[in-house]
Amino acid sequence: MDAFDLMNVVGLVAFAVVGSLKAADAELDLFGVAVLGVLTALGGGTMRDTLVGRTPASLQSMADMSVAVVGVVLAVVLSRRLAGRLRDHPAVLLSDAVGLAAFAATGALVGSEAGLSPYGVVILATLTAVGGGSLADLLLTRVPVVLREDFYATPALFGGVVFWLVTQLGVVVDTAALVCAGFVLSTRLLALRYEWELPRV
Amino acid sequence: MDAFDLMNVVGLVAFAVVGSLKAADAELDLFGVAVLGVLTALGGGTMRDTLVGRTPASLQSMADMSVAVVGVVLAVVLSRRLAGRLRDHPAVLLSDAVGLAAFAATGALVGSEAGLSPYGVVILATLTAVGGGSLADLLLTRVPVVLREDFYATPALFGGVVFWLVTQLGVVVDTAALVCAGFVLSTRLLALRYEWELPRV
Amino acid sequence: MDAFDLMNVVGLVAFAVVGSLKAADAELDLFGVAVLGVLTALGGGTMRDTLVGRTPASLQSMADMSVAVVGVVLAVVLSRRLAGRLRDHPAVLLSDAVGLAAFAATGALVGSEAGLSPYGVVILATLTAVGGGSLADLLLTRVPVVLREDFYATPALFGGVVFWLVTQLGVVVDTAALVCAGFVLSTRLLALRYEWELPRV
Repeated sequence: MDAFDLMNVVGLVAFAVVGSLKAADAELDLFGVAVLGVLTALGGGTMRDTLVGRTPASLQSMADMSVAVVGVVLAVVLSRRLAGRLRDHPAVLLSDAVGLAAFAATGALVGSEAGLSPYGVVILATLTAVGGGSLADLLLTRVPVVLREDFYATPALFGGVVFWLVTQLGVVVDTAALVCAGFVLSTRLLALRYEWELPRV
Repeated sequence: MDAFDLMNVVGLVAFAVVGSLKAADAELDLFGVAVLGVLTALGGGTMRDTLVGRTPASLQSMADMSVAVVGVVLAVVLSRRLAGRLRDHPAVLLSDAVGLAAFAATGALVGSEAGLSPYGVVILATLTAVGGGSLADLLLTRVPVVLREDFYATPALFGGVVFWLVTQLGVVVDTAALVCAGFVLSTRLLALRYEWELPRV
Repeated sequence: MDAFDLMNVVGLVAFAVVGSLKAADAELDLFGVAVLGVLTALGGGTMRDTLVGRTPASLQSMADMSVAVVGVVLAVVLSRRLAGRLRDHPAVLLSDAVGLAAFAATGALVGSEAGLSPYGVVILATLTAVGGGSLADLLLTRVPVVLREDFYATPALFGGVVFWLVTQLGVVVDTAALVCAGFVLSTRLLALRYEWELPRV
């Protein structure tokens, strides 16, 4: 299992959990929960592949969908144990941060493999990371978290930069992807913990 | 006229009617009605073609757009005769079921022709079927029907499976597409008639 | 600098201003303002390039992003001087009309270069023009302006027709693009000034 597969599985499960719990919080029924979980998991990667002109991984094999379904099942089990409003529950925020980090890494890897410029790699990492959660919010007709929180897209963006810097040091892309994911995850968690934010205009 | 063209025309008219009546229900003016009708009709197919890397049919010729406009005109005439809330009117639900069935068939045909795996064919059929109506709901800032109703994406998904099973029996794809459409339409109508649903989480 | 580059820069700045001011009006903080400004600026062109099967310009170089950021900075400075509700402020409407016109021209140029039919050129011009503003509205969970106003997509559509007619007269595409932009801008401003509208259904 290379870094892409590892990050992909982690990201798919994490975002399937996030999407499912957001749907349960919005009082959708079991099927709506499953659909939103799957779409949240597959959304970012499908956008990533379409942007670089590939047939999306989600259409090529059952692998991604199967992993997403595991995440949905996990979320359904979890949701019966979580008290209070699911939307802001620490378990959801943590899972979301993990998904953000993992998908930033897959975006950086695909962009790098597709021969994009360093800049393109950074942007693709950011879009892949924020794509799934934004889709979930849009489908629930909420302003996406990427617009509401300062340190959501930002960690992903700097994660892309970290990926590029590390590869420039001669480190292989697989290791660089793991460093990128670690950076995104820790930055996002610090931002949540200390409520980092920027002033309003 | 092969199965693709037939299903395409049926689906375009049906979804143009659905989109237009949803727009009229949301009190948009004539132009908004026409735009939403056209976008609902063309949305699923455009997504379908983009996902398999083709220039969308909606950009290649006036055919799809012209058929969609016929659907819009039909809807405008119809809307003056329908009483009560258009959104849930039986005519809208029927038209929506017809569009769902027809576009599932076109998705299965395009996926099969593009050489996708059986799994990919099923997913493309589902996305093509639910794409137009979801776009309409999103543009009207409503939670899309695909999340609210259990047996909306499900009939399309199983329709894709039926398409694949029938082709495995040696039946030509054109016939398989018609069987798929018939299955989706009847399942969707049964679900509406008997209010099939799954429990909440 | 050819017509594409000129229209692209003008459109990017104009739509970055529009997106940023819409975000400020929705009381997003500085980061949300910047993100929505950038997405509004890059949205239409990214959709345009994806539809004709190219890697989006926004992923290929920092140029588009940098220009969009200039627009965001301009908007932040502007927003401190504008009184009243930003959403309907004349400065926003003017900037939006300029972006609409400039992106219609880039859509027509890319469609023409990609070898689309005259019809495809017109549709691509229209989608490119209305894409950014529609994305901004969707992300703020509002019914997009393209559905609410009759003479928003219409000027772009006829601008595409004008582009095609002018090239048929033997005029080079760069000049045709400028004529197209001039037509869209003046038609949109006239529609705003005289409150052109169509009857409700």
